[in-house]
Amino acid sequence: MGDRVTVGIVGASGYGGVQLVRLLLDHPQVEITYLGGEGSAGRPYTELYPHLQGRVNLTVEPVSVEVIRDRAEVVFLSLPNGIACKLAPQLLEQGCKVLDLSADYRFQDLKTYTQWYGEPREDAATAQKAVYGLPELYRDRIRQSSLIGCPGCYPTASLLALAPLMKQGLIEPNTAIIDAKSGTSGGGRQGKINLLLAEADNSLAAYNVARHRHTPEIEAICSDLAGQSVLVQFTPHLVPMPRGILATVYATLRDPGLVREDLITIYQAFYRHSPWVNILPPGLYPQTKWAWGTNACFIGIEVDERTGRIIVMSAIDNLMKGQASQAVQCLNLMMGWPETMGLPQVAFYP
Amino acid sequence: MGDRVTVGIVGASGYGGVQLVRLLLDHPQVEITYLGGEGSAGRPYTELYPHLQGRVNLTVEPVSVEVIRDRAEVVFLSLPNGIACKLAPQLLEQGCKVLDLSADYRFQDLKTYTQWYGEPREDAATAQKAVYGLPELYRDRIRQSSLIGCPGCYPTASLLALAPLMKQGLIEPNTAIIDAKSGTSGGGRQGKINLLLAEADNSLAAYNVARHRHTPEIEAICSDLAGQSVLVQFTPHLVPMPRGILATVYATLRDPGLVREDLITIYQAFYRHSPWVNILPPGLYPQTKWAWGTNACFIGIEVDERTGRIIVMSAIDNLMKGQASQAVQCLNLMMGWPETMGLPQVAFYP
Amino acid sequence: MGDRVTVGIVGASGYGGVQLVRLLLDHPQVEITYLGGEGSAGRPYTELYPHLQGRVNLTVEPVSVEVIRDRAEVVFLSLPNGIACKLAPQLLEQGCKVLDLSADYRFQDLKTYTQWYGEPREDAATAQKAVYGLPELYRDRIRQSSLIGCPGCYPTASLLALAPLMKQGLIEPNTAIIDAKSGTSGGGRQGKINLLLAEADNSLAAYNVARHRHTPEIEAICSDLAGQSVLVQFTPHLVPMPRGILATVYATLRDPGLVREDLITIYQAFYRHSPWVNILPPGLYPQTKWAWGTNACFIGIEVDERTGRIIVMSAIDNLMKGQASQAVQCLNLMMGWPETMGLPQVAFYP
Amino acid sequence: MGDRVTVGIVGASGYGGVQLVRLLLDHPQVEITYLGGEGSAGRPYTELYPHLQGRVNLTVEPVSVEVIRDRAEVVFLSLPNGIACKLAPQLLEQGCKVLDLSADYRFQDLKTYTQWYGEPREDAATAQKAVYGLPELYRDRIRQSSLIGCPGCYPTASLLALAPLMKQGLIEPNTAIIDAKSGTSGGGRQGKINLLLAEADNSLAAYNVARHRHTPEIEAICSDLAGQSVLVQFTPHLVPMPRGILATVYATLRDPGLVREDLITIYQAFYRHSPWVNILPPGLYPQTKWAWGTNACFIGIEVDERTGRIIVMSAIDNLMKGQASQAVQCLNLMMGWPETMGLPQVAFYP
Repeated sequence: MGDRVTVGIVGASGYGGVQLVRLLLDHPQVEITYLGGEGSAGRPYTELYPHLQGRVNLTVEPVSVEVIRDRAEVVFLSLPNGIACKLAPQLLEQGCKVLDLSADYRFQDLKTYTQWYGEPREDAATAQKAVYGLPELYRDRIRQSSLIGCPGCYPTASLLALAPLMKQGLIEPNTAIIDAKSGTSGGGRQGKINLLLAEADNSLAAYNVARHRHTPEIEAICSDLAGQSVLVQFTPHLVPMPRGILATVYATLRDPGLVREDLITIYQAFYRHSPWVNILPPGLYPQTKWAWGTNACFIGIEVDERTGRIIVMSAIDNLMKGQASQAVQCLNLMMGWPETMGLPQVAFYP
Repeated sequence: MGDRVTVGIVGASGYGGVQLVRLLLDHPQVEITYLGGEGSAGRPYTELYPHLQGRVNLTVEPVSVEVIRDRAEVVFLSLPNGIACKLAPQLLEQGCKVLDLSADYRFQDLKTYTQWYGEPREDAATAQKAVYGLPELYRDRIRQSSLIGCPGCYPTASLLALAPLMKQGLIEPNTAIIDAKSGTSGGGRQGKINLLLAEADNSLAAYNVARHRHTPEIEAICSDLAGQSVLVQFTPHLVPMPRGILATVYATLRDPGLVREDLITIYQAFYRHSPWVNILPPGLYPQTKWAWGTNACFIGIEVDERTGRIIVMSAIDNLMKGQASQAVQCLNLMMGWPETMGLPQVAFYP
Repeated sequence: MGDRVTVGIVGASGYGGVQLVRLLLDHPQVEITYLGGEGSAGRPYTELYPHLQGRVNLTVEPVSVEVIRDRAEVVFLSLPNGIACKLAPQLLEQGCKVLDLSADYRFQDLKTYTQWYGEPREDAATAQKAVYGLPELYRDRIRQSSLIGCPGCYPTASLLALAPLMKQGLIEPNTAIIDAKSGTSGGGRQGKINLLLAEADNSLAAYNVARHRHTPEIEAICSDLAGQSVLVQFTPHLVPMPRGILATVYATLRDPGLVREDLITIYQAFYRHSPWVNILPPGLYPQTKWAWGTNACFIGIEVDERTGRIIVMSAIDNLMKGQASQAVQCLNLMMGWPETMGLPQVAFYP
Repeated sequence: MGDRVTVGIVGASGYGGVQLVRLLLDHPQVEITYLGGEGSAGRPYTELYPHLQGRVNLTVEPVSVEVIRDRAEVVFLSLPNGIACKLAPQLLEQGCKVLDLSADYRFQDLKTYTQWYGEPREDAATAQKAVYGLPELYRDRIRQSSLIGCPGCYPTASLLALAPLMKQGLIEPNTAIIDAKSGTSGGGRQGKINLLLAEADNSLAAYNVARHRHTPEIEAICSDLAGQSVLVQFTPHLVPMPRGILATVYATLRDPGLVREDLITIYQAFYRHSPWVNILPPGLYPQTKWAWGTNACFIGIEVDERTGRIIVMSAIDNLMKGQASQAVQCLNLMMGWPETMGLPQVAFYP
């Protein structure tokens, strides 16, 4: 294992952390050398996740930049918002590559961050160097970067659905409405009443309507793609299943003459070099379960000629393409490895 | 029980049928005297639904207008589309009151029916007499009618969300987008692969995008309310739970000065005399589970001042307010009984 | 409402509490006049359970014996173990009737209580007067009592399955094995990681094997019925559903000549006067869902002639017959009302 | 891919088939060259399973021994009971290695087969050569065999729990009671009413009590291990989840002095060379989800000193270790490859 790249995970106790552990265990080019956390420091990792018994022998350690630097060339930060922005500058200075799974490095414009997340920021210089970790849109810049701001789960599903439309000026940008539905693991490994099986099962509801923090992230990238300022309507819902996101996206087409098959062709061309995006044939719409445990995104496309709208459905695993496996996809790019290396391609079904 | 109204249910073996049986068993003014069906004729009803053991002693009988007429003053038809339109004219002629749960009598304009359902119709005179069984909108006409075309489950949730907006001209009508999510019982008691727990659990997908048959039903009523022809975008989704519908409705407000609290006030006034509609206070959004097993509809309202849109969320039990209990609510009106008689008001939670 | 019996609920914020609220709202002879709690004192009850909006106007109050006494003739205590034994003696002294849903008054022998629950007790005189609230076994004593120790959810399902066998000496008592499976609401409305939907869904496991606190409760009643000291093997499991318990009970028959139909006849006779127990016909086994939201218990019986064992399956709703509705059934008996008054008899299915 | 072993799958359209396809796609030493089926012959495989889009280009072909022989060195038969016994003799004659996932080759004694499965058999000579495909018990014989009768899902979980006890005479053999719980995919990809999400979700029940066909299979292997004829009590239950089996096994210890830690040591020794069996430390019991999508079996052990019984809990994925991945594990042994080759080791959690 001598020539494997050493990797540390800070914030290993959450759902993002355990996905990273699972994925990196199977990755042929890396070795996990450090698991960090505050609340669970000192505990064997298998105490937190007993199913890893016999596969992981590491103990969670307190977070120390010095220890991480000595141990890991690459660091994944899987922490609550507002912590990575303290750690990342130090780790970068020590020569580590950093992939941050929080919101801290998703925004070029820190005013937007502060407005939606409520925290002032003092690391503008670092934030300027960060690249938004959506490989299908920013592949080349990710390859050159040492600091990746990995996208949120909802923005990943939403932007993969919207990007060809925004980039190619196919829709009236401000008509875009994203009705997104997520499994409950998006709420994290926290003992919240509304995430209990007894409460969340058999039920369905929207939350944070008109004010979810993933809105400005989607808008910033859409604006970048469209070359103009874009406002989107974004509504998240909680669905009674552990994993998966489906984003159903509505927008008014600029050219009412475009039919479904045209749009499918445009999407296929747009994602021609993106092995993880599957554009479905006419009449087939994605099931979130098809992406379970994989880095895939499935996209289905419909045009309603009566109303002049396109409807795009985008399905991912919120903890994988929406979080951990997308970060590993970014790592693959940063290291010059094939984009698919070490990542599960086919879901277990049913 | 001598002075109870006698009731028959044709198509008793499906999910709509068994809800009606459950509700009418507990209704203080009626007595079930006939259960009809073709496929299950001759079988004791408890063979189909063993949990009714000791509560129902009826056997399913072949469908015969003469037998029904002799046995029942009121008839519920819970049959596949295209059958009620053969039976209802005969039953009406025999003096029965008829409540049809299929699509057959939901349309005044039979051309629309034929266009979306593919069947020619020869009962235009009967269809003209039918009243659309959404009591919150057509209470007075239901009271006078002998033939009710009970609404579909999606239209019930969607129209209760849209009616105040359409009726009072508060939105640009053609901007209305309905993103609807339903539990799987909406697919009926049929052995379909895609409705198996092994397939449908842990997954989520849209279906019949831009072509679901509930679209023209929603549009017809919206047009009636708005006094102009309205097109809506309607997308149904299948959610991994047995029951419940959530309709998330988006529309652009005509007056950008209206705030959330204004709209809540308008909705409360609109539904002032509708005991089954609960308008939620600011910031509270409905859980489908709150309506489980009841005739209630919960409506939450949000306004996004950034985009100028209203977002209305409407939650019902698809088999109750979306089907069987709404039919009983109509019966209550037809018979001059209180609108809430015999209907469950509070869900078992959790 | 002047002549209704006034009722208070202490510990109204939990799942037991909200079931009681729902049931007593619909009960024709009582009126809820007090809701008590510590953690949620001062909050409107609908803040805790928004689906009760428009149905309940009470605010949770701090727990005070004087206030309760002035307000309520009957008090339900739905509190963690070890609290009711402080409150009940005072309430009884003030003339209230008390139904306790915790473990505090389930044991005549307080040594057993202290051994399994770890708490010393100083209210032996009060405990002596308590009656075990399983009406099917102790109907007459419940009628005479002012203090009911309501059974645990697992003991209810297990004892209804075992009682005819123990009482009539049909099995080798110490061969009884109870493999019980419960929905997750049994864990209460607490933010525990293992009860999150993300963790508990799609999974199944045993817990507290060989040491669950419901074991001595089952053994005490079995010993009472059998007239000898009985040890049972009891294993609880957590199942990915909100509600329901199935107890699968195994025991060796004393008389190998008994066949399934004999046993069904014996059970039917044993429960002849128990309207809530449904003995299923040969070959039919209970689904927990058949009991959802009702006070019913469904029992299926099988005999394996190859092994000489009887297998009894008993299904209830853990929050209803296993908790709240059984308490109301006891109240009906205490007040001389019909045993079925105000209690749901038929589940919503599916 | 020239030197990969060619593999065919007959009965590829079912859940067993699609697991095999998924596993063999990722296996480094094999290539899938044939997918056979009757009902779906002529259809592209991705029509049946759209999530395999872009990964599988094969079309389902009619079943022909000649075609299979020309195309595949190894054949998996994933068919209803009673069909493999017609095909296997011909395929063996043509030089293929055969792994049968049905019940046809699980029994040395065809009288037992005929008694429980109702079909006469004429291939006694072939059946004599078949080896029971449970590698943890029959590893050496599997290595030498050309025909494997792969175990049922329940027997796999049950026998891994019982084997050390039976083999080493630690229990009274006839006291063994297996209370097994399975996800609904065990019922196959068939449109059965009782497997619909609307019916099976939120519910739990036993089925085929005292007469499930996996009983004789468990008894035959237990008898082989114990060196005496053994009867077991086996009860299967359907649990509302797609995958997973938990077998909770009860038996009376011969030596009442043995404690939990002794038994754990004995199990660890027994499975020392079995990489797929994880014996859990004291006090930890298996969650079925820990095995989801893997070939692992997790075993937890408890001793109840009060009753003298051992309780063993065994968790597997019913479609993996209980079916498809266990067959691939057998293939690995037959080909002289490492037992773990190409098989997923760690579940995605949660």
